Amino acid sequence: MSNAIEIYKKKTRKSAQLFAKSKKFHVNGVSHNIRFFEPYPFVTKSAKKKYLYDIDGNKYTDYWMGHWSLILGHAFPAVASLVKKQLPSCWMHGTVNEMTVSFSEIIQKAVSVAEKIRYVSTGTEATMYAVRIARSVTGKKIIAKIDGGWHGYTSDLLKSVNYPFSEAESAGLVDESHIASIPYNDLEKSIEILNSVKDDLAGVIIEPVLGGGGCIPATKEYLLGIQEFVHKNNALFLLDEIVTGFRFSFGCHYKTMDLDPDIVTLGKIVGGGFSIGVICGKNEIMETANTRLHKKLDRSYIGGGTFSANPITMTSGRAMLSFLKKNRQIYSKIGNLGQQTRRELDKVFDGKVITTGAGSLFMTHFVANGITQVNNAADAALCNIDMLHRYHFEMIAKDGIFFLPGKLGAFSYSHSQSDIKDLIEASNRFSSIVR
Amino acid sequence: MSNAIEIYKKKTRKSAQLFAKSKKFHVNGVSHNIRFFEPYPFVTKSAKKKYLYDIDGNKYTDYWMGHWSLILGHAFPAVASLVKKQLPSCWMHGTVNEMTVSFSEIIQKAVSVAEKIRYVSTGTEATMYAVRIARSVTGKKIIAKIDGGWHGYTSDLLKSVNYPFSEAESAGLVDESHIASIPYNDLEKSIEILNSVKDDLAGVIIEPVLGGGGCIPATKEYLLGIQEFVHKNNALFLLDEIVTGFRFSFGCHYKTMDLDPDIVTLGKIVGGGFSIGVICGKNEIMETANTRLHKKLDRSYIGGGTFSANPITMTSGRAMLSFLKKNRQIYSKIGNLGQQTRRELDKVFDGKVITTGAGSLFMTHFVANGITQVNNAADAALCNIDMLHRYHFEMIAKDGIFFLPGKLGAFSYSHSQSDIKDLIEASNRFSSIVR
Repeated sequence: MSNAIEIYKKKTRKSAQLFAKSKKFHVNGVSHNIRFFEPYPFVTKSAKKKYLYDIDGNKYTDYWMGHWSLILGHAFPAVASLVKKQLPSCWMHGTVNEMTVSFSEIIQKAVSVAEKIRYVSTGTEATMYAVRIARSVTGKKIIAKIDGGWHGYTSDLLKSVNYPFSEAESAGLVDESHIASIPYNDLEKSIEILNSVKDDLAGVIIEPVLGGGGCIPATKEYLLGIQEFVHKNNALFLLDEIVTGFRFSFGCHYKTMDLDPDIVTLGKIVGGGFSIGVICGKNEIMETANTRLHKKLDRSYIGGGTFSANPITMTSGRAMLSFLKKNRQIYSKIGNLGQQTRRELDKVFDGKVITTGAGSLFMTHFVANGITQVNNAADAALCNIDMLHRYHFEMIAKDGIFFLPGKLGAFSYSHSQSDIKDLIEASNRFSSIVR
Repeated sequence: MSNAIEIYKKKTRKSAQLFAKSKKFHVNGVSHNIRFFEPYPFVTKSAKKKYLYDIDGNKYTDYWMGHWSLILGHAFPAVASLVKKQLPSCWMHGTVNEMTVSFSEIIQKAVSVAEKIRYVSTGTEATMYAVRIARSVTGKKIIAKIDGGWHGYTSDLLKSVNYPFSEAESAGLVDESHIASIPYNDLEKSIEILNSVKDDLAGVIIEPVLGGGGCIPATKEYLLGIQEFVHKNNALFLLDEIVTGFRFSFGCHYKTMDLDPDIVTLGKIVGGGFSIGVICGKNEIMETANTRLHKKLDRSYIGGGTFSANPITMTSGRAMLSFLKKNRQIYSKIGNLGQQTRRELDKVFDGKVITTGAGSLFMTHFVANGITQVNNAADAALCNIDMLHRYHFEMIAKDGIFFLPGKLGAFSYSHSQSDIKDLIEASNRFSSIVR
């Protein structure tokens, strides 16, 4: 490791200087906690296709891909050209615009639950509003989430994110009593907990593939079981597809599991890389947000925001989805890359890791503490996280391969078979060091 | 009025059709509640300089200016050209980038409280985090806001926004008990209320010019009085300058009043029209958010978010602030336009309106219910709001002048003396109709 740090420091001298400067302006030098890694993150100059370029002239094959937003790769020309074309007509209108309507038409056709759509500017906002709508519609208060589930920083869902899940996530939170938490992929225990709060249960929110919690798919049985319980108890079934929406196929992940969610949140991919959050929901549910029909006490007062449905995000998102729609073979291409990678990584590490994931998403968990399966965020947290960071950092320092240390990797359309070869070779080298 | 509706419908036939279509996809046809107005909002095709163009080919002189973000006008070339130049290097890195550092350098020089800065993607996020930090730092829970104060849709501040301020703003809110509310510009009553909660008071958040609440400047005496009380009681003084930051001079409004806030939130103008929220604060306060220094229970866990500090917003914001910094005469130009407009509108309406505002911001309140001064949001709400909507709508329909109905107007660098002439003539015509 010290060897990797030396190599890294040597090749990122300018980054070291600029990051030191960044720390004068920004808490821990960053504007997103997870973008920091030891000894300091390199500073990006530009990004194209599958590569990140830092200010020292280093090139990294990127598996972080803009928080997994850039399914076509960095600076994809079909998106860039339409954004560029939009600029002279302004990037911000503050009024109803025509591109929003045509963008929504694409989403509604692909996502059955999107009977009504509201655009906001971030995933954090989308989940905040989804929660508010669930509480408004049901007149109940408790929202259950998954241990290790991540729905952004909204106060309404900031609980049981990081292991151990029983501790508060932050100082300064005033009301965690209306958030319940259930274990992923454990239907019996989950139902037991939900049963204990069912009279005040407004909804359950779930990522169908746990993202930040460890790249772990939910079983169909689990999701169907939760959905059944929720609907039987007059609560809403909320799916957070900010990571999974348009990631595995042209549409949401839920449709491949015959689920019937009431609200689905989208973000990341659907914005084409520009700031977006989307709340999709069934008509009668979403209509509680209609301020024209409802007075203060009856309405679900949701945004919006200054930048919602701005012409650049709408243009970029439409360009992204139009391209994906016309080129659906992308999904089999990147899905195959993911599948092959999971298989080969398991081989390389020969029992030392469990590689989880689905489609183009994958994550290596270094087994520890007797873990033999990674079915939930607790399993993932009990694996050797330090080793995972070390593995990712070694590849940054020595192989020009970038995973945000500790985070799952995502293939994009810009990756190819040769990237798997490079990744496997690098993993082999790491495996032999730690053997 | 019916005459205006007929004229409007006649000239916005395509908008009527497309908006009807928009209602199939979106709750009330919009992605921001306030963008709807009766009978339906026109649909924007493009925007340049001071003009909005709708899909029927109508042109409107815009005083809404992208929720008051576009202080240089729509599609300002100096911003557009740098954004365009950035596109090939990608609009989203997901890592630390160099443009963030140079952008922050400009902000820190102009805003004394910005000892540390964190970028988020919206104003709603910025105020949510400001509240969380205040609670983290003080270990106390209550945040006081202003009756009629608007800080975005965050659950943490969604109270006492709309008149009557005592009613809940929405169904589905679970914890309004930690939000107190005080009357603007009434120091005695405000202190009385703050006194009653002082033992658990984490902070007070105030817009130095009430924006959505009626374009009403706070008196220096009021702000200093609140600040003194807050600091004496070990709470934080939070200024929400999302509307006022870089609006009246190159920097924040607080510096012209010798205030010493602990945290200032920025947004709108500083992003150059791209999605942004900024939390600026004193070093020791912001450092509670440092996840490298603090464990879960001690830290203030704030974002970030996927799109925070993205290269386009950083580029656009830097272009905006660089231009403003080099061309500070903009502020005297648009400030003079505002001052002259307030004076002339008062003359036109001859006692029927009170025109409030500061610098380039202005708003006409049609007096009613015995109101003789507009010092707070209650005064504004007791004025004739229907008449204000009618006035704004008449100008949309007949004069090609756009205020978002009911909202304050903002001059931009793209406006000129002739716009005042047009606005005053239109106001004269309206005044003679309702005489």
